[in-house]
Amino acid sequence: MQVVDYPEGPVRPEHFEVVEVDVADPGPGQVLVRNTWTSVDPGLRLRLRPSAPVGYFSSFRPGTAMDGILTVGQVIESRAPGFEPGNTVWHSYGWREHAVVDASEQAMNGIGDLRVLDVDNVAPSWYLGPLGAIGLTAYSGLSVAGALEHGETVWVSAAAGAVGSLATQIATRLGHRVIASAGSAEKVAWLVDELGVADAFDHREELPAVALPRLAPGGLDVYFDNVGGDHLAAALDNLRMFGRVALCGSVSDYESEPRVPRNLFLATAKHLTLTGFRGSLHLDLLPEMQRRVGGWLRDGSITYRETVYEGLAQAPRALADLLAGRTLGKTLVRL
Amino acid sequence: MQVVDYPEGPVRPEHFEVVEVDVADPGPGQVLVRNTWTSVDPGLRLRLRPSAPVGYFSSFRPGTAMDGILTVGQVIESRAPGFEPGNTVWHSYGWREHAVVDASEQAMNGIGDLRVLDVDNVAPSWYLGPLGAIGLTAYSGLSVAGALEHGETVWVSAAAGAVGSLATQIATRLGHRVIASAGSAEKVAWLVDELGVADAFDHREELPAVALPRLAPGGLDVYFDNVGGDHLAAALDNLRMFGRVALCGSVSDYESEPRVPRNLFLATAKHLTLTGFRGSLHLDLLPEMQRRVGGWLRDGSITYRETVYEGLAQAPRALADLLAGRTLGKTLVRL
Repeated sequence: MQVVDYPEGPVRPEHFEVVEVDVADPGPGQVLVRNTWTSVDPGLRLRLRPSAPVGYFSSFRPGTAMDGILTVGQVIESRAPGFEPGNTVWHSYGWREHAVVDASEQAMNGIGDLRVLDVDNVAPSWYLGPLGAIGLTAYSGLSVAGALEHGETVWVSAAAGAVGSLATQIATRLGHRVIASAGSAEKVAWLVDELGVADAFDHREELPAVALPRLAPGGLDVYFDNVGGDHLAAALDNLRMFGRVALCGSVSDYESEPRVPRNLFLATAKHLTLTGFRGSLHLDLLPEMQRRVGGWLRDGSITYRETVYEGLAQAPRALADLLAGRTLGKTLVRL
Repeated sequence: MQVVDYPEGPVRPEHFEVVEVDVADPGPGQVLVRNTWTSVDPGLRLRLRPSAPVGYFSSFRPGTAMDGILTVGQVIESRAPGFEPGNTVWHSYGWREHAVVDASEQAMNGIGDLRVLDVDNVAPSWYLGPLGAIGLTAYSGLSVAGALEHGETVWVSAAAGAVGSLATQIATRLGHRVIASAGSAEKVAWLVDELGVADAFDHREELPAVALPRLAPGGLDVYFDNVGGDHLAAALDNLRMFGRVALCGSVSDYESEPRVPRNLFLATAKHLTLTGFRGSLHLDLLPEMQRRVGGWLRDGSITYRETVYEGLAQAPRALADLLAGRTLGKTLVRL
């Protein structure tokens, strides 16, 4: 899949095209992988621009393959020690059916650096979700907000999304009182009925500025921000003294001009700390996260849901639906 | 002094009036103080509104005395143990010539809670500056930004102001490379010639977005923000990965609609931490700050400058000048 044109507003399928190329033979130290699952994430939208935010992943260049998208697949040919045909691996050459990957990337040991995955009792697609970048993002967001330990009041926005639904459940498991918000009645019903969230609201029916004082009259300690804009502004209004914000993303801004909070001074007034973060910068937490979250997934105390699109050609549609809020849980393409 | 009307835009003297009232006799446990110096600070502007930011000091109410402004004076009559006529004290009933203060506030031991001050080798007015709230704000701002220890690149804005000029000098003393900005050629000359700052720029001549890449091509580690708006946006653009911002104030916004940074997403991209703070919430650092900064002041390695207005009637003019950027160093009124 490659980019044809950068979208000006919402992503549409015609911004992309599937290109057929011959699959190269793997050279020495390389493996050929048949990709089986590839990831669709809100942050991809930030790379569909002439220049992505500094420090972030680089822009996709029109007319070339989209590198740097997490994928799971099976090795079908290996010229690299430690990799055998049939191994399930992850790497970062997604949104394509086959990839030739250099095994030296294994040494980096990051998410998306070629590695053989343990798929005993684990669905391979989970490595694109709770056992991979998504889980690490949720877990490290709670970590940067100082919320891995204490029982506090935590608001998670976009809580029916991939990161949000994990952050919601992990925070609940850790003993926090969690308020979850999402953008449709269906999502809120899922949060309440399936995830067992006590306090959830639909931000399209009730503004956060109204819902938060109702649900947390004593104020919030932590806000896990997946939305930005009016959500972040409402959090600043409703955080207690010494509150913390984990700035995970601001999906409300990705397809339009940023709607910035006009009350940032409250950070000074209330001694708030806002920390931006990306899970990929917290690889030290990966083993701990995989152990804890993996355990909760296997014993059923954490629910994980996927919205699956079939076939590479559906990837742009999947991204458009994700950005428009039409997917639930982790969005994936099965290749 | 009391407020007549809340200003809509810039503060003008006619928003205030001096009211003469009889000085009450101190009751049991109280002292009568002849105030000698009173403080003029940018944050007062935030209290000239129907409601001040939540968590901040409360609004001044029209038609009543303006409580909660730091002041130094001399006890002229005492009915409280531990206070003698002639003692120099600080308290928080400024912008007036006399005040009857309850000595039980001493127990709180905060800045502005009635306390006898040590004025050996120390100018009393310094307690409204480097040895009081101003020093503690500068010092605790560097503390919340994790900048009390390492030699890094630190930008301080409004660096010719009371807090900024101290933060600039403390950071320099701590071994940081400091970039200082201010709003006039005179201020920049003072920073360079008197404070010995190597890298200073006039933000009215050269936008921070232009000056910062020139002066810190490798990026900033820390931004001590006294300005907000375009300054904060430029900092977000120029901070390195894992950079930190101390949100001290945003004087650019106090007399107009907030001009908010539109690039807050860079916090997520670059793993930046923004921490709002007020010195008064870091009283634990007060003794350490007074010892270190007091030493640097006495040995002349820190320069401290005051802009002094004479007489209570000049207090509104002092505030208006401060907010318009027409003062240098700490702004005070001698009563």
